[in-house]
Amino acid sequence: MRAQKLLAEGLGTAFLLIGVVGSGIMAQNLAGDATALALLANAIATGCMLYVIITTLGPISGAHFNPAVTLAFALRGDHPWSAVAPYIIVQIVGGLLGVWACHAMFDIEILQSSTTMHRTGSAQWVSEIIATFGLLFVIFGGLKSRPEAVPALVGLYITGAYWYTSSTSFANPAVTIARGFTDTFAGIHPSHIGMFIVMQIIAVGIAHVVLTRLFTDD
Amino acid sequence: MRAQKLLAEGLGTAFLLIGVVGSGIMAQNLAGDATALALLANAIATGCMLYVIITTLGPISGAHFNPAVTLAFALRGDHPWSAVAPYIIVQIVGGLLGVWACHAMFDIEILQSSTTMHRTGSAQWVSEIIATFGLLFVIFGGLKSRPEAVPALVGLYITGAYWYTSSTSFANPAVTIARGFTDTFAGIHPSHIGMFIVMQIIAVGIAHVVLTRLFTDD
Amino acid sequence: MRAQKLLAEGLGTAFLLIGVVGSGIMAQNLAGDATALALLANAIATGCMLYVIITTLGPISGAHFNPAVTLAFALRGDHPWSAVAPYIIVQIVGGLLGVWACHAMFDIEILQSSTTMHRTGSAQWVSEIIATFGLLFVIFGGLKSRPEAVPALVGLYITGAYWYTSSTSFANPAVTIARGFTDTFAGIHPSHIGMFIVMQIIAVGIAHVVLTRLFTDD
Amino acid sequence: MRAQKLLAEGLGTAFLLIGVVGSGIMAQNLAGDATALALLANAIATGCMLYVIITTLGPISGAHFNPAVTLAFALRGDHPWSAVAPYIIVQIVGGLLGVWACHAMFDIEILQSSTTMHRTGSAQWVSEIIATFGLLFVIFGGLKSRPEAVPALVGLYITGAYWYTSSTSFANPAVTIARGFTDTFAGIHPSHIGMFIVMQIIAVGIAHVVLTRLFTDD
Repeated sequence: MRAQKLLAEGLGTAFLLIGVVGSGIMAQNLAGDATALALLANAIATGCMLYVIITTLGPISGAHFNPAVTLAFALRGDHPWSAVAPYIIVQIVGGLLGVWACHAMFDIEILQSSTTMHRTGSAQWVSEIIATFGLLFVIFGGLKSRPEAVPALVGLYITGAYWYTSSTSFANPAVTIARGFTDTFAGIHPSHIGMFIVMQIIAVGIAHVVLTRLFTDD
Repeated sequence: MRAQKLLAEGLGTAFLLIGVVGSGIMAQNLAGDATALALLANAIATGCMLYVIITTLGPISGAHFNPAVTLAFALRGDHPWSAVAPYIIVQIVGGLLGVWACHAMFDIEILQSSTTMHRTGSAQWVSEIIATFGLLFVIFGGLKSRPEAVPALVGLYITGAYWYTSSTSFANPAVTIARGFTDTFAGIHPSHIGMFIVMQIIAVGIAHVVLTRLFTDD
Repeated sequence: MRAQKLLAEGLGTAFLLIGVVGSGIMAQNLAGDATALALLANAIATGCMLYVIITTLGPISGAHFNPAVTLAFALRGDHPWSAVAPYIIVQIVGGLLGVWACHAMFDIEILQSSTTMHRTGSAQWVSEIIATFGLLFVIFGGLKSRPEAVPALVGLYITGAYWYTSSTSFANPAVTIARGFTDTFAGIHPSHIGMFIVMQIIAVGIAHVVLTRLFTDD
Repeated sequence: MRAQKLLAEGLGTAFLLIGVVGSGIMAQNLAGDATALALLANAIATGCMLYVIITTLGPISGAHFNPAVTLAFALRGDHPWSAVAPYIIVQIVGGLLGVWACHAMFDIEILQSSTTMHRTGSAQWVSEIIATFGLLFVIFGGLKSRPEAVPALVGLYITGAYWYTSSTSFANPAVTIARGFTDTFAGIHPSHIGMFIVMQIIAVGIAHVVLTRLFTDD
């Protein structure tokens, strides 16, 4: 019991400093750049959307929208392994359709592939591990402490995480793949997708070990 | 059951990418432009207002404030057809009074008509279909999953949708008409109102078919 | 019953357009000006504070913090007339102490009076009537529809109202007086305080008549 | 009873003006400076993180993440004195780990110490007293009035307090120490840490006296 409490205080304070200092570094890096306001709007809009889709679709499918989340639920025994592949396939297909819908809405070429070259390197890979670990921490912690808050938790976590990780927190293999298919602000060069997904899967493993311990009843 | 879950995961992930990529494109288009901050403030203020009026007036009138919503409720059998026309009329009249109140508050000519010419074209029409479909998705999904969250759902959805659709999500025939009567930031040229409303009504039809299936209990 | 519903739909749609068009005009007026970001931060910080103080102090004093609200509660018979004057006095004193605490925190002269001359004129007076009416609408509507939402309702209403009224919504005689004592961003020239308060009191009267009718059970 | 109500109205209105005027002064000081947007993003990201970690970890450890909060709970008899030192130690260690994780994520030197010299002086010291008092006010007021709102209360309070105090509200000795170890936006020169912590501890004392009186049942 005592160890669990101390782990919680230590981990929580570490996350708090990530929030304070990480977002400060990102803000400083972007200061004076038009990208700063772009990222703020992008972060707010994404958070709004996450709140909306998790609230409305949670009772139907569990509202994963993310192969890493589906995998983590399966590892805990909360999602049948036979339903993992179908979920991941529709997540990837849905993601692509979403990207193409954006291109149609903004009157640009439907089929694109990203030429954005800066989403790579070990610092961003560490970011993806922390970002994905944090996302699973938020989901499983929320399910334990206050399930009805999960939509707000995920929405706010990601709004913040756009700022306090250097990768802007993809934290989702389906989103990572889909973002390879757009040569716009959110794009990632297809050759950099693989490592992001590897990091996201590593985070699923770490989260499984740590969170099982942290959010146990005993 | 299985198909419903897969539809939910696919649709949800598509919406998620619309949130991520669409708002990124809008942000990139506006980067370095004073309009970016204007749109952010406009989006936040509109979301705040939606939360407020739906919370306070929902128990009285259902808080439609939108002929497309009134029509969608009538199609589901949740609003008497005889009350459709009166609702739409007061929504349009109320919208006009709101615009004129703004003009009075900001000391500009009360009677105006918009000269804004850029709110047209097939990309924006697609946007209005998606925006209105999404609004109905949020309302009917929220009513099924967590009715007390509907004010937050609609407020946050529209705050985000200002960014992830190229039309900035009018999604409301009464609002569209009223915005024809102001030659300010939110204006739309009267000759472009018709097609926006047509798209919004098409979305009501699509939503009726899809959402009945998605949010069924069986 | 029918008339009450139509009034709700009309009033709600009017408020919606005030949110959309009013904030657009303000944003357009400030576009390209450093004041735009200042107002956004000011609006967000104020909304945060309102949520906090109403949630924590509501169960103790009712969390008026506003002579117009105290007066409106008294008119409804929900606050003893004998407690009106004491409430108003401590609100004014508390407001002054808050301003002086700010001056101490930012290392500027404690005793100041505002030299800001632009907070006057009929457009802003209309704004103060609408802003104060809206505030009372939000409070009494929220108390009827969902009392636990009142802190969020007031916080979000005011965050938005900084943008969709030309006066940036003082809507509070104690705040108006206190803001006469600071020669900073939020200041108002002492000679302009009187008319703002007159408008706020007029709004209390209008709200009493309209809201009694709108939020009646019968 | 009467005195408690008047104290609540006075204190609440003082806080309201701190929100309105303080954030206005900060915004005005930063107007036209790229730091304004940086602080806004920093404030929003920090608020998001606070909501997330308090919601998920509250049921486990109480979610202090702050030696001042642990001390305040101990003074009230709500946290065993024997558990104060262990909590404070893991908070400080966790904070350092969080800072170093940020440096890893943003590809900068892991071990740093701040060279930021402007976080000192009596105005900022007053700010830290008010900021920490306000934080404890929010926590203990929230625990009494609506415990499930505490994560939102703390998140929103701090988001606002970045703006309405001149120190940007450290309000936390563990955070203050950790921020000495980063030479980025959020840094504080090590020689200035001591006085910030002294002020935070003074605020714990003041809060203990005032809040016991304000939030008593009797």
